[in-house]
Amino acid sequence: MNAPTDPTKERSQHEDDVLERIAKIVGAGVVSVGEHYVGDDAAVLKPFVGEAIVSTDVAVLGIHLDAELFSLRDLGYKAVTSALSDLAAMGARPRGVLLAVSAPPGTDLEEIHQGAVEATRATGTVIVGGDLSGGRDVTVAVTVLGECPGRGAVLRSGARAGDELLVTGPLGRAAAGLRRRREGAELSDELVEAHRRPWPRLAEGMAARGAHVHAMMDLSDGIALDLHRLADASQVGFALDDLPVAAGATEEEATSGGEDYELLIATNDPARLRMMFYDRGLREPITIGRVVPEMTTRTLRGKDLARRGFQHRL
Amino acid sequence: MNAPTDPTKERSQHEDDVLERIAKIVGAGVVSVGEHYVGDDAAVLKPFVGEAIVSTDVAVLGIHLDAELFSLRDLGYKAVTSALSDLAAMGARPRGVLLAVSAPPGTDLEEIHQGAVEATRATGTVIVGGDLSGGRDVTVAVTVLGECPGRGAVLRSGARAGDELLVTGPLGRAAAGLRRRREGAELSDELVEAHRRPWPRLAEGMAARGAHVHAMMDLSDGIALDLHRLADASQVGFALDDLPVAAGATEEEATSGGEDYELLIATNDPARLRMMFYDRGLREPITIGRVVPEMTTRTLRGKDLARRGFQHRL
Repeated sequence: MNAPTDPTKERSQHEDDVLERIAKIVGAGVVSVGEHYVGDDAAVLKPFVGEAIVSTDVAVLGIHLDAELFSLRDLGYKAVTSALSDLAAMGARPRGVLLAVSAPPGTDLEEIHQGAVEATRATGTVIVGGDLSGGRDVTVAVTVLGECPGRGAVLRSGARAGDELLVTGPLGRAAAGLRRRREGAELSDELVEAHRRPWPRLAEGMAARGAHVHAMMDLSDGIALDLHRLADASQVGFALDDLPVAAGATEEEATSGGEDYELLIATNDPARLRMMFYDRGLREPITIGRVVPEMTTRTLRGKDLARRGFQHRL
Repeated sequence: MNAPTDPTKERSQHEDDVLERIAKIVGAGVVSVGEHYVGDDAAVLKPFVGEAIVSTDVAVLGIHLDAELFSLRDLGYKAVTSALSDLAAMGARPRGVLLAVSAPPGTDLEEIHQGAVEATRATGTVIVGGDLSGGRDVTVAVTVLGECPGRGAVLRSGARAGDELLVTGPLGRAAAGLRRRREGAELSDELVEAHRRPWPRLAEGMAARGAHVHAMMDLSDGIALDLHRLADASQVGFALDDLPVAAGATEEEATSGGEDYELLIATNDPARLRMMFYDRGLREPITIGRVVPEMTTRTLRGKDLARRGFQHRL
């Protein structure tokens, strides 16, 4: 869609030139033979195997990432990996990433795209398309595409009474990292890194799908909110024995800090899940409790676990 | 990705509640059996047939659509149909649309989504996912997904010397409509409608793919820019005999106004293209000239056609 301004006034800055510079950065990634990306009206991808999995996420500088504490490169990186986490949550294999960036004139668009490319390279994916626009905010809308061969995607709604509940790692690292950064910690601090460059659990998600788990989601808003969402979708309750709190994080950060992007899994065959993780060299998943039939039972160590965690102001 | 604010302060407005209201609007569209859309980490679509075609476009209120002259519903509608036009340009059959909306608190998000749903219903597609965020601007990032069975997508780069060049309709309607709206014309004015509710030429794109045309693109930035892009990608020149100027539009609006979203087609078998259009009940495409081998020959009625048209300020 174009701006409703006199086109003759728009020639000073050439979109095509900027796009060419961005294409050089983006094109430096791995490109599959027979696929066409940037440069046509749309990207052309080779046929998907099985179900197609798609999700979109928008990140706004100053809202989703503090511009005083982090860089534009971090914004590009985190926008991509947090979106990829939604593919991980379905057990999908990533096929491509699209970026739609809007920003005020003078914004270093190449930094944003460098960060995005670092994220796709690190995770073995590729940027297949994008768009640029002016605007007052710096916003990065990321769409991720993946595929689920075989039995297909793992939904939130499949948890059954008696299933074991597991997470792929200790919680609270991202929230602790943000707190530490605000207190003056370096960008290289391990917990700060967990906040600004979260890692999507793609390998874990695919392994869990292979182990035929019943339900899965990523912990983006804190387990005290996300586990309720999974239980609602599955029409079940839960009883948690314990929560694994990451070193350096508080119990509150682990419970409702959000942005850990660990996976939450429900399965009736945890041994198979553990074996699948072991075979693929993945860290052992951590059992936190079990699914119970009564929808109103939502407990941690026998006490009600209140529904709380991150909610966007809309 | 979450906002780096204290999560306990964010509970006054419930994202889940807003999402539920939006889901009701979006869910009112046609949903294919066996597909899961809003409500999980990602949307799950049944396997694509052939190549997967994807594109993303961002529209910003005040930049891409004048907030004084048009409504939020128009923004949602136009963001979707202008993005679908990129699928039309490849000859793709649409499979789904994702919306990532950011807006200041108090923005009528339901209006934006109503417009988007009207657009997907009118074009026989469906919204399969989305995201919402705060922000100072109202931005709508739209990702479109499609498929190309058989020989696959039609690229910009396939035009060959001797090909006939055609367009799917007269040009300049959108630019004329914007001018008329600024002069006080009603929203229902036919040309104003062409500006605020453009129609993606999906049926025409699929018919052209079926006719094995050599190259295709949509005219989003004006033919005086877009035809150069097609010629550059195909490493050819062009000689235009004439341009079809829409009733009520000026020659300048037809040449470089942009946003007409008519398709530009290069084929060595125009009779087959015409027959395919006729069979499907589509208006006859209009021949405008031919492709020539010399890359530097870029003429309209024997005179050089300067490269000009809409370029975003970045």
